[in-house]
Amino acid sequence: MDFSKLFNPESIAVVGASRDPGKVGSIILKNLRITYRGKIFPINLNTDEIQGVKAYRKVLDVKEPIDLAVISIPAEGVLSVLKECERKKIKFAIIISAGFKESGDSGLKLENDIKKFLKTSKIRVIGPNSLGAINTFPSYNATFIDPNSKPMEGKTAFISQSGALLSAIVDDATLEKIGFSKIISIGNEADIDEAEMLNVLLNDEKTGAITLYMEGLEDGQKFIKNAIEVSKKKPIIALKGGKSKIGAVAAESHTGSLTDNNMSYDLAFNKAGVISVDNIDDLFNFMRDAPTLKIKSDEVVIVTNAGGGGVITTDALSAANLKLVKLSNNVVNELSKVLPKEANMHNPIDILGDATPERYKETLEIVSKLNKPIIVIFSPQETSMPIETAKEISEIQLQNRDLPILSVFLGGTRIEKAKRYLRENGLPAYSYPNEAVDIIRGLYAYGTFSPPVYTTFDKNKTKVPKVSSKENLFGLSAKEVFDKIGIKTASGAFFKNEAELQRVVKKIGYPCVLKIASNTIAHKAEVGGVVLGIKNEEELRKAFASLKSKVNENHLKLDGYEIYEHANKENKQNVEILLGGHRDRQFGPLIGIGLGGEYANLLNETEFMLAPISDKDLSEFRNSKIGKIISAAAKHKVFDELIDYMISVSKLMTANPQIKDIDINPIMMFEDSVVATDFKIYN
Amino acid sequence: MDFSKLFNPESIAVVGASRDPGKVGSIILKNLRITYRGKIFPINLNTDEIQGVKAYRKVLDVKEPIDLAVISIPAEGVLSVLKECERKKIKFAIIISAGFKESGDSGLKLENDIKKFLKTSKIRVIGPNSLGAINTFPSYNATFIDPNSKPMEGKTAFISQSGALLSAIVDDATLEKIGFSKIISIGNEADIDEAEMLNVLLNDEKTGAITLYMEGLEDGQKFIKNAIEVSKKKPIIALKGGKSKIGAVAAESHTGSLTDNNMSYDLAFNKAGVISVDNIDDLFNFMRDAPTLKIKSDEVVIVTNAGGGGVITTDALSAANLKLVKLSNNVVNELSKVLPKEANMHNPIDILGDATPERYKETLEIVSKLNKPIIVIFSPQETSMPIETAKEISEIQLQNRDLPILSVFLGGTRIEKAKRYLRENGLPAYSYPNEAVDIIRGLYAYGTFSPPVYTTFDKNKTKVPKVSSKENLFGLSAKEVFDKIGIKTASGAFFKNEAELQRVVKKIGYPCVLKIASNTIAHKAEVGGVVLGIKNEEELRKAFASLKSKVNENHLKLDGYEIYEHANKENKQNVEILLGGHRDRQFGPLIGIGLGGEYANLLNETEFMLAPISDKDLSEFRNSKIGKIISAAAKHKVFDELIDYMISVSKLMTANPQIKDIDINPIMMFEDSVVATDFKIYN
Repeated sequence: MDFSKLFNPESIAVVGASRDPGKVGSIILKNLRITYRGKIFPINLNTDEIQGVKAYRKVLDVKEPIDLAVISIPAEGVLSVLKECERKKIKFAIIISAGFKESGDSGLKLENDIKKFLKTSKIRVIGPNSLGAINTFPSYNATFIDPNSKPMEGKTAFISQSGALLSAIVDDATLEKIGFSKIISIGNEADIDEAEMLNVLLNDEKTGAITLYMEGLEDGQKFIKNAIEVSKKKPIIALKGGKSKIGAVAAESHTGSLTDNNMSYDLAFNKAGVISVDNIDDLFNFMRDAPTLKIKSDEVVIVTNAGGGGVITTDALSAANLKLVKLSNNVVNELSKVLPKEANMHNPIDILGDATPERYKETLEIVSKLNKPIIVIFSPQETSMPIETAKEISEIQLQNRDLPILSVFLGGTRIEKAKRYLRENGLPAYSYPNEAVDIIRGLYAYGTFSPPVYTTFDKNKTKVPKVSSKENLFGLSAKEVFDKIGIKTASGAFFKNEAELQRVVKKIGYPCVLKIASNTIAHKAEVGGVVLGIKNEEELRKAFASLKSKVNENHLKLDGYEIYEHANKENKQNVEILLGGHRDRQFGPLIGIGLGGEYANLLNETEFMLAPISDKDLSEFRNSKIGKIISAAAKHKVFDELIDYMISVSKLMTANPQIKDIDINPIMMFEDSVVATDFKIYN
Repeated sequence: MDFSKLFNPESIAVVGASRDPGKVGSIILKNLRITYRGKIFPINLNTDEIQGVKAYRKVLDVKEPIDLAVISIPAEGVLSVLKECERKKIKFAIIISAGFKESGDSGLKLENDIKKFLKTSKIRVIGPNSLGAINTFPSYNATFIDPNSKPMEGKTAFISQSGALLSAIVDDATLEKIGFSKIISIGNEADIDEAEMLNVLLNDEKTGAITLYMEGLEDGQKFIKNAIEVSKKKPIIALKGGKSKIGAVAAESHTGSLTDNNMSYDLAFNKAGVISVDNIDDLFNFMRDAPTLKIKSDEVVIVTNAGGGGVITTDALSAANLKLVKLSNNVVNELSKVLPKEANMHNPIDILGDATPERYKETLEIVSKLNKPIIVIFSPQETSMPIETAKEISEIQLQNRDLPILSVFLGGTRIEKAKRYLRENGLPAYSYPNEAVDIIRGLYAYGTFSPPVYTTFDKNKTKVPKVSSKENLFGLSAKEVFDKIGIKTASGAFFKNEAELQRVVKKIGYPCVLKIASNTIAHKAEVGGVVLGIKNEEELRKAFASLKSKVNENHLKLDGYEIYEHANKENKQNVEILLGGHRDRQFGPLIGIGLGGEYANLLNETEFMLAPISDKDLSEFRNSKIGKIISAAAKHKVFDELIDYMISVSKLMTANPQIKDIDINPIMMFEDSVVATDFKIYN
């Protein structure tokens, strides 16, 4: 649909405009009057004029058309105003009013009523509980941010779930000379959510990068889908609040969002090419530089006039999995012609404490030919010339417009002007090496992003059964499902009594294992419901007697018992693997594979991936610790078999939305085969 | 010894003072003339007056006593000047001159000559290759830092191995209003090193905290010893450059320091209570606040007017292993009396976007009674009053002088003055939540530091043999050593031929293992030198034949062969453990224990500790992943036995400095016993 009237309206109504200068409705009107050149219609039940502008009682009283309504009245009245807006054929509304789902049950009801109305209405809504929205060109400021925090025009869009954080960031951005294309306080997302806003901004020419502060998502899969499309054209950078478990609780009581733990967000961001940042200061640097900086290489050149600065930067690069460019002999030769002999001509290139602007220039001219990201460190020393150095860097940038040259000017008083000079000329300039490194890491990941492909996944032709049971399935009833999707499981059989046992043991053979059969007891060993390593008839008899007595002792209600073959009859070397699935509230099935067995929880070596499993997921899995252990311990075909299992489990969970968790642990992995010996499905 | 004349000299000679204003010797003289009230004697071979001060040809020409000489002449002349200084009975010298070990072999020779002289001389030296030193009260600036970067008086000392970083930090500190007690550019440490400087600063009343930038250490154990003593009285904060492997190479070519990888430094810092920081910006915050802030609890209260700010802070706390205080019903009740009902009265306490200074004050009055660290988040919103809020916070601080109240003022223009107000009043104030959290984490670790005690270590009475061999010991020759220190190893015997084999197999029994005997072949299996699982005489004969043919095939030179018992005859469940030792260049033996077996390198689950092993090391080991796995898999006595082994290995390496590495892998750990089946000593 066409969102042009949201950001480029010809007229705006301020519903709840107020004569009281402390009121939100007054600040919004004031901000619009300062920033907006279209027609403004203040709406107020009790007055004919506000701030010198003619006011109306209702939107329906306005004769001219209205493109956008900004609503700031008590929550209870919002729905009827929306209905009036619809009758007035207003296309967009921003609901500033709070008092909805963030404030408890009665608010939630009001919000649900609005959602219900919006489902059949043509009007599209941002909010409620939004701080408003800002466009910088053509300009309007439909927020109640302090008018002193005037956001500048720029190429970064910012969408925030936290209004307070938004106003703090806008305030700081003004000081730091960061500009914005659009600023949207997304509020409770009763209608338009981040995912849709991403789509809107995808085609917005003014926007070169999109930054997000988010605490939760209603529809994770839609977010991933849209973010992938956006990532093909412009970077998305997200600060996710509520990453920690305790943080998630804080987020919940704050916005009413349903947040899950962090892992699923990391996986989703990775899949969609979204750059994830942890701190507000990182977010800032991306806001400033993400629209212009392109990083296509993970090998970096460092040029420094301070050895210590080079060391710290190198540490930071290494911690970020980035590398130093190895300089060829040719380059070293060229450098030796322009640098003093005490200089270090190898990367990090130390051009010494007495480096002149000229020496920076000559060095940069040589290394700029490598076409790799350059970090320039400047430390103010006795003979240093900060401004002149900044000018030379700027000159080199002009000659190499697409080359990423990131300056780090250490120090304070003496380098302030130089840093400002660089920023005003659109060059990335930072205070500390780790800032430059974080930017390179993020933009390199984005620069090498490609949308997920599913070659291996699509090759897998597993026929996935519909699991009709709504109850948990443990043991044989789970085995039955896994057998159908091709997972090799230990042979087993059900029996009810001694006579049936004597019959089934003939098929299973010795050594064998007895278990109680139950779909309610998840940990059978804990109630004495498992006997391992049964070697002969006599031991079998004892084992069954023992099981029966445990059943009596613990008053267990059972249908019967299970017998399994001993999966490792020849006592071969093996590694225990676990394969699992977990349905995430936001993003759907997560598939996990890791070291299994008794200490799986302690080892905690499990790689997760979001369903469906992409080729990139698989290649990352191959390079993970567990992937390498599997490669070392088993043949290629075993590895491929496990990948097949992962894909089948992924498909099983996708086809059966009632399955919450899947636990196949352990899978005994031998050099050239695997067999699962315990299996559970939680519905 | 008495260092008072170094920092409080009655007279200073500037050797190499210069009339050329661009020269280092001129800047030092100028800096001293501006900052120092004692007598200054410029020393210059060719002139009688510099900058209006009478100059002398040599220090010996000065009739009055001289306490400190600052030497800035070409490297070649430094030794003879030092000799003159000694004759003049000058107690301290700061050698600014570069051109020593940092610049290659000839420089290294000059430095070694100076070191040799200093061994028998009474004069004590900072440098060479130092930027100089600064005392702020009584004041002198004996550096060639730009005179515009005037360091203020404060309670933090700063010792730096990088001169350039030092000048950048001093420059920025001036802008950020961070003060210093002493600033020392420690240079190449030909005489006085960090460890000794720590001792000097331990008793310096002007110094409340010591900050370090370091790239390498000559004597790690001395550093630990002195740092422990200092940590009893004041915090040490270290930024270690050259943490990464590539960073370590950068550090080496820079200062000529011998650096090792990072782990040993982390262990050493942990042992000595040193707070380790990763970034310059963290170092800054500690410089500002470490002397005054005391953190005794890891439970934090958050008070915020921005829900999103509370969420991000909570995430940061969680990532730093810190907690939120759980507020009692009483506290919640009290809060509900002063806060609007929409506020979140649970920690993080959200006092809402329209929070007044009064509301901050009332909230802080309530939570200050809990006596826990408080993070106050302020985000500038439409009705917020930054300065007034800062004043209320400051008021609460005055009433609770020792209470840690850390303010985070988000935003820019609107909160600048408020943040400055807090800092000028000595209150911690930051721009981002993670800064406050990093400070709390560091100072909490310091606040709960206690010097290492060695109860368990001392109880162990293992008699440690002197290992005379200078060669590697593999197999039985290593087993002999480990048997002596009480480590249980698989039975084994040496044999040369079939006849001897037939004799020794009677003692060892079946199943058994054959190996080639060699102290040069570390990986015997790779050359086919190991046959496992030999069950009977026939298999034994085949195994021996196979070994012999491999020996011929690979032209191996051997003394003979080894036979071992099969350590797990009953095929019991077991976990493979590795126990190892590595001699670190700086800090001596590191003892490691982890998951062993074939995939030990891939699993990479090893806990290291520095010898000697302290009670704290052991308690951290118990709580580590590997510690928990051992606890889950084996009985208490097995855990204790492994600890005994670790201590014995630690003692063995300490008593035998030629041992470089020890590898006992695997140790098969059963529920109630352990046995090592492969063992190596690298000399």
